[in-house]
Amino acid sequence: MDIISENLIKTVITPRPLTTHKGNYGRILLIGGFDNYHGAIIMASKATVFSGAGLVTTLTDQANVSNLNIAIPEVMALGYTKTLALPSLIKNYDVILIGPGLGLSKIATNLLRTVLNSIQVNQTLIIDGSALTLMAQNCYSLPKTALTVLTPHTMEWQRISNILIKNQTVNENQRMVNILNAHVVLKKYHTEVYQPHGTPLRLNVGGPYQATGGMGDTLAGIIAGFLGQFPKNQQTVAAATFIHSKIADELAKTQYVVLPTQITAKLPEFMHYYSNF
Amino acid sequence: MDIISENLIKTVITPRPLTTHKGNYGRILLIGGFDNYHGAIIMASKATVFSGAGLVTTLTDQANVSNLNIAIPEVMALGYTKTLALPSLIKNYDVILIGPGLGLSKIATNLLRTVLNSIQVNQTLIIDGSALTLMAQNCYSLPKTALTVLTPHTMEWQRISNILIKNQTVNENQRMVNILNAHVVLKKYHTEVYQPHGTPLRLNVGGPYQATGGMGDTLAGIIAGFLGQFPKNQQTVAAATFIHSKIADELAKTQYVVLPTQITAKLPEFMHYYSNF
Amino acid sequence: MDIISENLIKTVITPRPLTTHKGNYGRILLIGGFDNYHGAIIMASKATVFSGAGLVTTLTDQANVSNLNIAIPEVMALGYTKTLALPSLIKNYDVILIGPGLGLSKIATNLLRTVLNSIQVNQTLIIDGSALTLMAQNCYSLPKTALTVLTPHTMEWQRISNILIKNQTVNENQRMVNILNAHVVLKKYHTEVYQPHGTPLRLNVGGPYQATGGMGDTLAGIIAGFLGQFPKNQQTVAAATFIHSKIADELAKTQYVVLPTQITAKLPEFMHYYSNF
Amino acid sequence: MDIISENLIKTVITPRPLTTHKGNYGRILLIGGFDNYHGAIIMASKATVFSGAGLVTTLTDQANVSNLNIAIPEVMALGYTKTLALPSLIKNYDVILIGPGLGLSKIATNLLRTVLNSIQVNQTLIIDGSALTLMAQNCYSLPKTALTVLTPHTMEWQRISNILIKNQTVNENQRMVNILNAHVVLKKYHTEVYQPHGTPLRLNVGGPYQATGGMGDTLAGIIAGFLGQFPKNQQTVAAATFIHSKIADELAKTQYVVLPTQITAKLPEFMHYYSNF
Repeated sequence: MDIISENLIKTVITPRPLTTHKGNYGRILLIGGFDNYHGAIIMASKATVFSGAGLVTTLTDQANVSNLNIAIPEVMALGYTKTLALPSLIKNYDVILIGPGLGLSKIATNLLRTVLNSIQVNQTLIIDGSALTLMAQNCYSLPKTALTVLTPHTMEWQRISNILIKNQTVNENQRMVNILNAHVVLKKYHTEVYQPHGTPLRLNVGGPYQATGGMGDTLAGIIAGFLGQFPKNQQTVAAATFIHSKIADELAKTQYVVLPTQITAKLPEFMHYYSNF
Repeated sequence: MDIISENLIKTVITPRPLTTHKGNYGRILLIGGFDNYHGAIIMASKATVFSGAGLVTTLTDQANVSNLNIAIPEVMALGYTKTLALPSLIKNYDVILIGPGLGLSKIATNLLRTVLNSIQVNQTLIIDGSALTLMAQNCYSLPKTALTVLTPHTMEWQRISNILIKNQTVNENQRMVNILNAHVVLKKYHTEVYQPHGTPLRLNVGGPYQATGGMGDTLAGIIAGFLGQFPKNQQTVAAATFIHSKIADELAKTQYVVLPTQITAKLPEFMHYYSNF
Repeated sequence: MDIISENLIKTVITPRPLTTHKGNYGRILLIGGFDNYHGAIIMASKATVFSGAGLVTTLTDQANVSNLNIAIPEVMALGYTKTLALPSLIKNYDVILIGPGLGLSKIATNLLRTVLNSIQVNQTLIIDGSALTLMAQNCYSLPKTALTVLTPHTMEWQRISNILIKNQTVNENQRMVNILNAHVVLKKYHTEVYQPHGTPLRLNVGGPYQATGGMGDTLAGIIAGFLGQFPKNQQTVAAATFIHSKIADELAKTQYVVLPTQITAKLPEFMHYYSNF
Repeated sequence: MDIISENLIKTVITPRPLTTHKGNYGRILLIGGFDNYHGAIIMASKATVFSGAGLVTTLTDQANVSNLNIAIPEVMALGYTKTLALPSLIKNYDVILIGPGLGLSKIATNLLRTVLNSIQVNQTLIIDGSALTLMAQNCYSLPKTALTVLTPHTMEWQRISNILIKNQTVNENQRMVNILNAHVVLKKYHTEVYQPHGTPLRLNVGGPYQATGGMGDTLAGIIAGFLGQFPKNQQTVAAATFIHSKIADELAKTQYVVLPTQITAKLPEFMHYYSNF
């Protein structure tokens, strides 16, 4: 298994062509922040904006709309209502991320099912957090997309893959990734990034200063932002995963713990660094 | 076509006379932030305050009032209600900016029409964002004002001018600017600033790190702030446009992307720099 | 007329005795932030906290309570209701500031009248902003207090004193201050600080970079904070007025305009500086 | 009585093992922020997150949920409702802190009684602020836990212990601590940290720049965060108390007053410093 290297990141994060505009950097739809999990989608949305996405829309609990507007006014916040026409909404986006703070409610299940049924083959899908648990609980199949990314931690991966944590070897994981035909970011000590029928990549940055709530939501937001503007492939997913933990490493040089929103704030600076080699 | 130079900015941003007070720096009314676009007027309002406007009032969706109070307490936030007496409200202001996050609803249309009908010849009007689309859809005419500024991107300009994007040459644009008798900030790579029967100016600062949502809302807010305190002419509009992108250039020396609110935070410092030559 | 000097400030802002606690630094009640003026009391409250007050309570519009909690959680925010027992509430405080964003409504008038009728001779009262206009409109008399401070700009002073702005000479102002038996901070270019039957002091710091909304609300908040912890006299009022503009001067070395909340953020540092001579 | 030394802190705050995750750093439940005291639990929650707790949940007034989501999205905010099943909720947490901004209402009393009745012998309990007053008023007994910490100031300690402030000698306090079988942080000039049948520790850092509202709420939050990740003993309680005031000392080198949220922001950096000896 290869290590995700700084050289790989540099091939992903490239200087922007001069005449581009926000339409060139992705239209991203984030779905989450229901029940008692409003903060999760706030953190994910911030991460997507700071990672350079062109246009970010977040569908969330009606009671979370003002929170989002205050926390990150750059995001267009949509409040969920029963009359929401999600299939036609989805059509407007390149990348859909569902999961941060989604919860396990009936509304959550309906939103996930609608996304799975509506997404088109030219769109990119990221499934995170409780959406992964809902996938497993309901035995939903993955849709045909340009690229699908799952971002489970080891317990969520067990639910999705039916591979017990103790049996989650690289070979077993890769076998299941091939079957699912999805990219998988398996979050753990030395996170692994899988692509179907490819070579897994392993993260050798990051550390226990990241062991705090919201870290995964932020990673999901960065992956969405990166897939909106860079090539839709394993390298881009790996680059997002790398930069998230690399920033944490840097902050940990002077901090015992690193907060998710602190990582987000550093994204523009670190992306600049890697784009200038 | 002339380039907007740093020398021009210095003639606009001049030291403030010692005995002046906030009444000397403009009473600005911003109108926007409806439907799902609350964040847009928050960003515009912040930009107007940080650009040094004397008194800033923002008329927005009732549900956006608290967001504004939290994000920028220096602004007086008014919530839209059906009984709003907009014509008498407008009388109190020197500069009216309508458009950031206005949307295309019936309320938006009514607000725009009322502004167009109520504004007086000694007032300044800036029309931005969806207000431009509403102008075109409803074939509204521009009112007589001290100065009117339109801030379209190329597609909005096509709607307003009926000049297809591919035909938007300087000569064609200038011809239509003369007919409209309005200043136009045509936003694109190398933005152009037109005045009626004058010489267009071209921006040679700014870059693709600005390709993110809210950038235009922030520019509109700066233009409003500048027209409240500096001479109401093309140079002032050009200075606002220049400083917006010049700050982005500076930030981009260490950032891959530049957020609108980051530009706003730097306005007082950059205005100080240009006022001291 | 004497100039407010740095030496005077140093006699006011002295090192805190080691064994003191928050009860030694004043219990301050702020009243304001109604109608469309929510932001004003947010700015005043922040200023009172950052100036070192021991305990700060703010009575404001019910709809402004959450805004305050978010902006400055150190403040106890009370929402106004019809059943409010203001007289018994007031008893708990050393210093009452009424005015920032109070407005001119019937509720505002009732609040002001109740404060004037309830305040005791051992308490300190500061009347600011629209509360001054209400005083004049209703011909209210000032109550007997330990110290009363009025903070009018020249037009508000005209309303209170019946001295036309053009006739507001030091002698005329001092004559009226003697009659009112209140301290007066007359806000203008070179603000003047009067005490009854005393020598007026003049400010020679500050400048036009302060010409922005919320500057007066912030000054009122600092005066309240200072009167909560320092001797209740003209020197303390003058010290608050001085530090407010002195910070602005410092910020203006690199900023074209200075925002009220930026001044507030610098209070702890500047107070430290003046306490260490 | 021993002084709390930097060496003691260093034995508590140790480097994190590489393969740990957020489950290793405590599941903390905070309860408070009712009536007019919303800000108190916001400050406590922030402190718990910044001190490195793995997962922080805050149960608060329904009207305070959005405030928390905006102020610290890393926290899961639960709004109190009459149907809340607190006993089963409590089961999910390692550490329960009740008190910051809890108030003295019937709801507050019910919440406290339920916590006292539901908490298990393997859980840690911290009782702060008005919860201490409620304990005394209702003559509640302390439950059997892994560790219980009370954080009274001297008047609250008088209510709890029935020892008059003037009689609160180390011997008398220790005698009552033995009876209560709880750790006690007695907040005053030179705060004392007691454990049952042990040696009290005294704080020799901190100062009057901390004499401002919210300081105690922040300390309670840090103690909760520390007990979630470090050994559940007197040293950990002392380390939390020490770092809170030590940061204040550092900030006071340039500030006349120190705000609670400023202390919180410095926690990751100071914890890093002490973990690297």
